[in-house]
Amino acid sequence: MLRSERPIGIFDSGLGGLTVFKAVRGLMPAENLVYFGDTARVPYGTKSQSAVVSFSREIAGCLFAKKIKFLIVACNTASSLALEEIKRISPVPVLGVITPGVRAALRLVPRGGRILVTGTAATVTSRAYSRALLAVRPDVRVTEKACPLFVPVVEEGWCSKPLAGLVAGEYLAAFRRAKIDALILGCTHYPLLRKVIARVLGPRVKIIDSAGATAIAAKLELSRLGLLNSGRSRGKCEFLVSDAPERFSGLALKLLGIKTGAVTVKRF
Amino acid sequence: MLRSERPIGIFDSGLGGLTVFKAVRGLMPAENLVYFGDTARVPYGTKSQSAVVSFSREIAGCLFAKKIKFLIVACNTASSLALEEIKRISPVPVLGVITPGVRAALRLVPRGGRILVTGTAATVTSRAYSRALLAVRPDVRVTEKACPLFVPVVEEGWCSKPLAGLVAGEYLAAFRRAKIDALILGCTHYPLLRKVIARVLGPRVKIIDSAGATAIAAKLELSRLGLLNSGRSRGKCEFLVSDAPERFSGLALKLLGIKTGAVTVKRF
Repeated sequence: MLRSERPIGIFDSGLGGLTVFKAVRGLMPAENLVYFGDTARVPYGTKSQSAVVSFSREIAGCLFAKKIKFLIVACNTASSLALEEIKRISPVPVLGVITPGVRAALRLVPRGGRILVTGTAATVTSRAYSRALLAVRPDVRVTEKACPLFVPVVEEGWCSKPLAGLVAGEYLAAFRRAKIDALILGCTHYPLLRKVIARVLGPRVKIIDSAGATAIAAKLELSRLGLLNSGRSRGKCEFLVSDAPERFSGLALKLLGIKTGAVTVKRF
Repeated sequence: MLRSERPIGIFDSGLGGLTVFKAVRGLMPAENLVYFGDTARVPYGTKSQSAVVSFSREIAGCLFAKKIKFLIVACNTASSLALEEIKRISPVPVLGVITPGVRAALRLVPRGGRILVTGTAATVTSRAYSRALLAVRPDVRVTEKACPLFVPVVEEGWCSKPLAGLVAGEYLAAFRRAKIDALILGCTHYPLLRKVIARVLGPRVKIIDSAGATAIAAKLELSRLGLLNSGRSRGKCEFLVSDAPERFSGLALKLLGIKTGAVTVKRF
C-alpha cells in the first residue's frame, strides 16, 4: 500500500469527534478514515489530566496498529491535556483541534478584541485555549466558560428544543453585554448547538467551529507532507469504539446523519 | 477486629451513591463505612452490560480487600446489570438498591396500580425494575422512563433552577394524566431532584427514594446476621475514587453537605 493510501486516524472520547470526521470526509472524500470513540470512558471533560493522558495513549496505540499515516485528536479535552504526550509517542504527525480553532478565531478578531472560549470543565481548567491564543496574539482578551450540560443536551437530541436555549442562556447570557467579538466552540459536540448559542449572544459575535478549521488544517498538512490520497474513488471508513456500538451507530445517524455500518468493539 | 466492627462497603459509578451513604450514616452512625466512586468511568448509565459488569467486579474487588462485612451496590445501573455477578464473586452479603426500592413502592401502591420508574438509559433498558416489581405483584402496571439529563443537572448544582423544572417537565409531563400512583427514583442522583419531580407530577403521586429504603434494608439484614456494630462511638468513613478526588470532595460537600476529608485515588 502506498503511504498516501494509509488511513487518517481520528479519535475522540465518544461521538463528538464525528463533527470533525464529517468535516474531514467532506473536504477529503478520497481519504481512508479510521475513527475511534472511547465510549467506555466517555466523557473525558470531568476527568483528571492523568486519566485523560492514560486513556489517550491507549486509543492512539490502537490507531497506530491500524497503520495510520496521520492522527487527528478530535477531542478538545484530549487536545488540551494529552497532546504533547501523544506527539511524544506517535510515529506519525499529530494534529489537535485547538491550534486550528485558535488560528480561525484570531483571523476574525480585531486588535484588543475579546474571545470567549466554551468547553468542558477539563478543557477550561487546563486553560489550553487561553495559552494558545495569547501566545500568538497577546493583545486579545480571553475568557473561558465551562458548559457541562451542552454535551448531554446534544446526546439527548434536544438541540432544537426550547430547553437548549435555556441551557445556553444559563451559561452565556451574562456575556451578552461583554462585547465579545468571537466565541470558540471548544468541544466537538458544540457545533450541533451553534444556532442556539448564536441566538443567545446575538448576530455581532462570530462563532468558530474548530471541526471545520481542523479539517482544513489537516488537508494543508497532508498536502505539505505529500501524503494526500490522490485516488479518485471514495475512501473507506472504519469505526471502532470501546463500548456500546449500537448506541454509537444510532446517535451518529440521529445527530449527524452518518451511517457507520458495522462498528468494531475494542475493550480495554 | 470483631467481625461486626469491619466496615460496610458502598459503591457507585460516581457520587450519586452518596445519597445512600448519607442515609446509611444517618441510620447506623456507629458503622465504619468505605465508599468507592468510579469517577474515572462515570457515568455507567450509557454503557453496555459487559462494561458495567467488568467495572463493578474491579470496584467490588477493591472493597473486598478492605475486609468489608457487607456490600451495598449503591448504583441503580450496576444493581440492574451486574448484581448477580457481584453476588457470585462476593465473600460477603450483597445488597443492591432495586429490591429495597421495589418493596417500598409496592407498600404504597393499590391493587392494579400504576408505577413509573425513572432511571438511566441502561437501567431502563435492562427492565430490572419491571421484572422485580412484577415478580412480587403481577397486578401492577409498570412504565419505565429514561431521564439522561437528570444526572448532569444534579452535578451542575442546578436542582433549584427553573431549568431543572423544564427538564423534569420534558421527561415527565406526559405522565401527568396517566394516573400514576407512585414514581421510583431509580438512580441515586435523583433524590436531589425530588421536589422538582413532585411539582411536575402533582401531589397525588408518591415518590420513592431508594436511598432511604436501601439503608433500612441494610440495617435489617445486618441485624439478622448479627453483624450490626454495637459500638457507641461514631464510625469512621473512608472514601476512594478512581479519578479526580478534589472534584469528588467538592461536589460531595456542595450537593450533599458531606465532608469527605482526604480521598484516596485507586487507578485501574
